[in-house]
Amino acid sequence: MGSIFSDRITDVPKSFIREILKVTNEKDIISFAGGLPNRKLFPVEELKKATLKVFENEGRDALQYNTSEGDLGLRKWIVERYSKNQNIDITPENIIITTGSQQGLDLLGKTILNENDNLIIEEPGYLGAIQAFSLYRPRFHPVPVNENGMNLEVLKQVIENNRVKLCYTVPNFQNPSGITYTDENREQVANIIGNTDTILIEDNPYGDLRFKGSAKKSFFTFMPKNTVLLGSFSKTIVPSFRIGWLVADESLIEKLIIAKQASDLHTNYFCQKVICHFLEDADIDAHIRKITESYGKQRDSMVQAIRKYFPDSVQFTQPEGGMFLWVSLPAHISAIDLFHKAVAEKIAFVPGDPFYINKTNVNTLRLNYSCVDEETIEKGIRIMGKVLQDFI
Amino acid sequence: MGSIFSDRITDVPKSFIREILKVTNEKDIISFAGGLPNRKLFPVEELKKATLKVFENEGRDALQYNTSEGDLGLRKWIVERYSKNQNIDITPENIIITTGSQQGLDLLGKTILNENDNLIIEEPGYLGAIQAFSLYRPRFHPVPVNENGMNLEVLKQVIENNRVKLCYTVPNFQNPSGITYTDENREQVANIIGNTDTILIEDNPYGDLRFKGSAKKSFFTFMPKNTVLLGSFSKTIVPSFRIGWLVADESLIEKLIIAKQASDLHTNYFCQKVICHFLEDADIDAHIRKITESYGKQRDSMVQAIRKYFPDSVQFTQPEGGMFLWVSLPAHISAIDLFHKAVAEKIAFVPGDPFYINKTNVNTLRLNYSCVDEETIEKGIRIMGKVLQDFI
Repeated sequence: MGSIFSDRITDVPKSFIREILKVTNEKDIISFAGGLPNRKLFPVEELKKATLKVFENEGRDALQYNTSEGDLGLRKWIVERYSKNQNIDITPENIIITTGSQQGLDLLGKTILNENDNLIIEEPGYLGAIQAFSLYRPRFHPVPVNENGMNLEVLKQVIENNRVKLCYTVPNFQNPSGITYTDENREQVANIIGNTDTILIEDNPYGDLRFKGSAKKSFFTFMPKNTVLLGSFSKTIVPSFRIGWLVADESLIEKLIIAKQASDLHTNYFCQKVICHFLEDADIDAHIRKITESYGKQRDSMVQAIRKYFPDSVQFTQPEGGMFLWVSLPAHISAIDLFHKAVAEKIAFVPGDPFYINKTNVNTLRLNYSCVDEETIEKGIRIMGKVLQDFI
Repeated sequence: MGSIFSDRITDVPKSFIREILKVTNEKDIISFAGGLPNRKLFPVEELKKATLKVFENEGRDALQYNTSEGDLGLRKWIVERYSKNQNIDITPENIIITTGSQQGLDLLGKTILNENDNLIIEEPGYLGAIQAFSLYRPRFHPVPVNENGMNLEVLKQVIENNRVKLCYTVPNFQNPSGITYTDENREQVANIIGNTDTILIEDNPYGDLRFKGSAKKSFFTFMPKNTVLLGSFSKTIVPSFRIGWLVADESLIEKLIIAKQASDLHTNYFCQKVICHFLEDADIDAHIRKITESYGKQRDSMVQAIRKYFPDSVQFTQPEGGMFLWVSLPAHISAIDLFHKAVAEKIAFVPGDPFYINKTNVNTLRLNYSCVDEETIEKGIRIMGKVLQDFI
């Protein structure tokens, strides 16, 4: 008699991050390992007001079961925002409110992927996406990303030699690398993908958190039929509500709604209404400016400290937004080995390994700056620099 | 080039209920078709108090990302409740907070089912479970349920001839039939399943809503290793929060947590804390008594009206709790045909079809009484009785 478990769950690796966080949750550690927004910037008072307003205005209507697609008012707000900020033309019928954008990944896997279907993912890529898609047992094709975006040669080759169903990207302030695709790179990626039936997923949780440079064009503007957009309020308003969304062409949406309904019927409706009132009454853009101002300073102080304390042989990205930067050590150095030395000195980060498909002992690592104040960043990077010097 | 969709989503039928609700949402219709708790009974004021308390006590802690397992305090409360009410001995480590108990079904499918694995489901069975499991493409084995519980002969045969991975049950006030398994039937089911490695899912969203008779033993007390429990606050406190839970043996829980994490990272944490404060400050048992008192009266008035207005050739269940009763028409009558006649007279119900695997034009139907007041029940059943008389 075989295992009681499905093959899909047997294949999925234990969450590396989960294991790492066990080590790094000690109190006196300086952690660049997290991936959380800064809790000091949560709009607590505005959310409280919005919550009270739900009790006043919607009352018991906000407490009943609701539709799988999600609140129409919220979907309308999202439509308007896409139109205003990104010149993207969609209707509320293109949108499903999801339980965080993480659920968008699960729904896409469920709806699109058969076992061994081909899927492109950035290298390095978001580990939550690797985990979500792994459960549908695709054939992963990692395509390297660099400071300009996707490696077009590799992308072209994979698309030419395989029928690729999904191509997963985080083109703005990527997790883990912090890089942003140039407009030129986006256009070229769209030229390669736009005349296939591959669906490109533009996962964009950080897009609003730009503190430098200018906004880039969405893949949707180049190839609307081939693009699925994922968005989230987790990084701009509040993570614990688990409210994100998915935008898809009408040819996909009905089956995605069936998958949504089978997965959890619908997303917390009460909190959807709280977000609606927040968006009506608070100034979301002013709030976002507060966040980006803070993250921008934290990012600057990390970049300056790295320049000052890290050996010259170490390379790093200089993100224009988001929460992460990416460090490449000299080729022979294992980031996991460095991690153990650093933890002994009370410094934590995420070694690059979980962001790759089938690569281990890589020489790269992710640093988060959104949750650590400028002084502590300076101190942490200084100590980490010393560990690095000793190590190299 | 084949379809962009996965085989699993192509197989899943459109939600029948979704289609029906389109017809029955008109304003002047008397609908026994819904499956919603009565909104008049939502504890709005207590929930508002609990919500304010979250802002006061937890503040920004309740707004940050949290663990995939769910809030420890909430899991402890669930542990104590099982111990007190059902003599079930578990620890918080056996529990995952899920996005409604619907998500429990998805996580179990994800974690356990390979394509063509054998799965037992009650006939008639909960259509949300049929939908959730369908996505994992099992071989369904429907086992009929009657007023005593499962048909033991059929169950024994299926178990003897197949390696069955999951057996899905709603043993208390079943959806759709309203029946409750007797203690004897439970013991006999446990005798058949307990020495296999089949996992029995005891989905129990209505168990607390008993208005007659005495509580029955959980399958867990007969075979803890083989039983997974699903629970929910949707029918006792508030549906829109989408907060349920899953209880599983330690041998299963780690992989279920991985599946949970991949699906949506974690369930809305803010509302988990609201529920915690509600449970601390409000009297949940008094609140449940209010619900059962009301549903008990509504059930009585439906049973009396059926006795009075339906032809004698029509059979029906007499539930001791929950929200539904089940009507069996004479064998040659199609409930869908009746549905169309009834809708013309502004009466709606759910024809039995979606509760069966591969059976159509059945002679059974589900009536909901939780959302309709006693007078309207009397009126609706009277009209339906007339339609029935004409039809038969």
